Amino acid sequence: MTLILRLEIHKKTISFGRIATAISESGGDMVAIDVIKESPETTVRDISVHVHHKKDQDNIVQSIKTLSGVHIRHVSDRTFLIHLGGKIEVTAKKSIDNREELSHVYTPEVARVCIAIEKDPALAYNLTVKNDTVAIISNATAVLGLGKIKPEAAMPVMEGKSMLFKQFANVNAYPICLQSQDSEEIIQTIKAISPSFGGINLEDIASPQCFEVEERLKEELDIPVFHDDQHGTAIVALAGLLNALKVTKKELTECKVIVCGLGVAGISITKMLLTAGTENVIGIDKDGALTREKKYNNKLWDWCAKNTNPNDEKGPLSTVIKDADVFIGVSAPDILHVEDIKKMADQPIVFALANPNPEISPELAKPYVKIMATGRSDFPNQVNNVLCFPGIFRGALDARATDINDEMKLAAATAIASIIDEEELNEDYIIPGVFNDKIVPKIREAVMKAGFETGAADRFS
Amino acid sequence: MTLILRLEIHKKTISFGRIATAISESGGDMVAIDVIKESPETTVRDISVHVHHKKDQDNIVQSIKTLSGVHIRHVSDRTFLIHLGGKIEVTAKKSIDNREELSHVYTPEVARVCIAIEKDPALAYNLTVKNDTVAIISNATAVLGLGKIKPEAAMPVMEGKSMLFKQFANVNAYPICLQSQDSEEIIQTIKAISPSFGGINLEDIASPQCFEVEERLKEELDIPVFHDDQHGTAIVALAGLLNALKVTKKELTECKVIVCGLGVAGISITKMLLTAGTENVIGIDKDGALTREKKYNNKLWDWCAKNTNPNDEKGPLSTVIKDADVFIGVSAPDILHVEDIKKMADQPIVFALANPNPEISPELAKPYVKIMATGRSDFPNQVNNVLCFPGIFRGALDARATDINDEMKLAAATAIASIIDEEELNEDYIIPGVFNDKIVPKIREAVMKAGFETGAADRFS
Repeated sequence: MTLILRLEIHKKTISFGRIATAISESGGDMVAIDVIKESPETTVRDISVHVHHKKDQDNIVQSIKTLSGVHIRHVSDRTFLIHLGGKIEVTAKKSIDNREELSHVYTPEVARVCIAIEKDPALAYNLTVKNDTVAIISNATAVLGLGKIKPEAAMPVMEGKSMLFKQFANVNAYPICLQSQDSEEIIQTIKAISPSFGGINLEDIASPQCFEVEERLKEELDIPVFHDDQHGTAIVALAGLLNALKVTKKELTECKVIVCGLGVAGISITKMLLTAGTENVIGIDKDGALTREKKYNNKLWDWCAKNTNPNDEKGPLSTVIKDADVFIGVSAPDILHVEDIKKMADQPIVFALANPNPEISPELAKPYVKIMATGRSDFPNQVNNVLCFPGIFRGALDARATDINDEMKLAAATAIASIIDEEELNEDYIIPGVFNDKIVPKIREAVMKAGFETGAADRFS
Repeated sequence: MTLILRLEIHKKTISFGRIATAISESGGDMVAIDVIKESPETTVRDISVHVHHKKDQDNIVQSIKTLSGVHIRHVSDRTFLIHLGGKIEVTAKKSIDNREELSHVYTPEVARVCIAIEKDPALAYNLTVKNDTVAIISNATAVLGLGKIKPEAAMPVMEGKSMLFKQFANVNAYPICLQSQDSEEIIQTIKAISPSFGGINLEDIASPQCFEVEERLKEELDIPVFHDDQHGTAIVALAGLLNALKVTKKELTECKVIVCGLGVAGISITKMLLTAGTENVIGIDKDGALTREKKYNNKLWDWCAKNTNPNDEKGPLSTVIKDADVFIGVSAPDILHVEDIKKMADQPIVFALANPNPEISPELAKPYVKIMATGRSDFPNQVNNVLCFPGIFRGALDARATDINDEMKLAAATAIASIIDEEELNEDYIIPGVFNDKIVPKIREAVMKAGFETGAADRFS
């Protein structure tokens, strides 16, 4: 790990050697010095230091702070350094080297291309970037674990996502963070800018606004709209579950599945499970299982209550979990206990996806579960939506789909699951890693096929 | 010039040799053949053909059409080929090669960068693409000479502009064509998406809507907004005029200048001339010179009438042009006559910028003018706004300017003029060529300085 310290040094008060010694003694290895500004009394320098542990960084900063005559202006670590100037750019596919080339890509010749598209708008998919381009749109109201932040502050996440779109699926993804909090304004803004894009990836929009925005845009736009926080997680979770059931030799349709935490991801997981044919899904939130008897102050919970829990089981998680084959948590840390798992059916499957701290720690659960998945990269079986969004959009774009419908999502989940073949499959390997290069082509093909078969797309390959 | 013919050939009806002969005899040189699809009866092939003149292309197409057993599916020429798949892309600055790198650019580490920007929003300029990024926004109501077209159909122009922004000034320019025609909706949309951008380049929006949209956005946004069709042309025209006056040894402040055609560019040229100190500017449109006495059904014409034409000259172009030192036309073909030029003061300067056909043809005017400029690349002294927008935005972005004000525009014009030194300067070389690599650095520096001095920016370099 490299960090860069920008130090303002009062030359008469302290020698550079003293500073260098302090850095070395705190575990740092000085690898470069750049003079930023020099005056007779002071000098400003950027000192690049290799450290082995994050702890060393803190030690170095602390020990420099104790020296007089040095002021730490700034500490940049590797994460910040990677972000300097942003992580993406908009580039030309070709350079323009002379007047003749300029006349082809710009006036006057470009007018003929405009006219061709004006006559046949479908040509926009051939003659502009539309067919490879999505907008990543957020209003920054539910960013990572940070909740609502300023739109500017959400850009690093969206730029990271754009990098992944390009690297994994050659999709141009423009990140746009909106200043607006009003649903109608968000919808109108996205509709207004939509002609330039082949798809819309909604991102980090808080519940319940995200449902309304997605639903309306799916109705009103003729390009696919996909809220990754809902469906990306649901698709990858279902992919993992399909493989977990192969290991335990159970059928999804016959399983009792608990979905704990009915927020954005929980609702979407519930819907996907129903689409996939699960009959006994039970949704649980703070007040216990959703039941048909109650009326909820939440349209989606009402919908869930009506369409799940066929045996009308009541009570808290610890009651309803009895005989469940699968627990999927997208809720809060430490709400699942060993005692609960003991009540589950044989070979319990536990997906504890709360991030960064799962519903039960894997160490604690391990002796009692058959298969465990989390949202974390430091345990086996990470449910990571990076597995899904590049491929699902690549497929939707290549199919020129007007929608990403349930069948396409289900196809994506099955495709992800299929990447691990039977010989490889085991309790600790039910979900492929994000750098597996089979993922995008497999999802793409499955999504195109499902889109074509359901009429959402008119191209198969 | 290369064209590609996609031919569907009925193999039993015609031999490929017959087709090849037809192409050769019509002036084409066949350089490549690709088999696209083969069946027992038909074959689909892409035939690449070099031709020397556009005329030959038509001849080839015509002669193939007379053959039976061949169907021309598609003809692509070089302009169309360059546009296949679009001309730009969104790329990552770095590839993500392993899980550790992923953790720096995306979750979980990216959250620290978000938090830093949340605490200090100015850091968005350091840690996201904002500082190098503008949105090119059009509603496609005044595209080239085509007028109002579909937003998708305007994308090739905006993508071409994006290429120029990147190549000349390393500015990431996202082209966004809006579906909306309503001014308020356009304003709200641009405001909503603005946090992700460091500047807004408005493009090809029809008059008078463009004035309202720009004015409101300049007031309501804290990033620079610049309508290129107005100011780009005005800045480059003024740059040319400054140099023309050096050649004729006249002072701008003392000249009588006719601006003919008071649309988007004409209004902006008039304003720039006043900013630059010209006292006697006369605006002319279909009804003749604007005068103080009349009331116009157009806010901007009223403004012009009040602020120009100090001697209150009346009448049509042919009257008012008497003793004018400079004619600048941004109006319609062939409305300026040799007789008019003969009435001008000595060493007449004529900028006939109507495109593609100027107010008077250079061949006709040449014997009577001292200096002539047009909007065309096939005559000397082309007024081309490609000279302006990359540098002016580079300067505004690097200065972190909140506006591109009149002083900055004037500075840009002076900077462009200054690129041609006194020894090089002559009647046929008053405006530098678009590939001159001094242009962007010169404009950038001048714009930053003017921005800093007028308080629109707080950074000088």
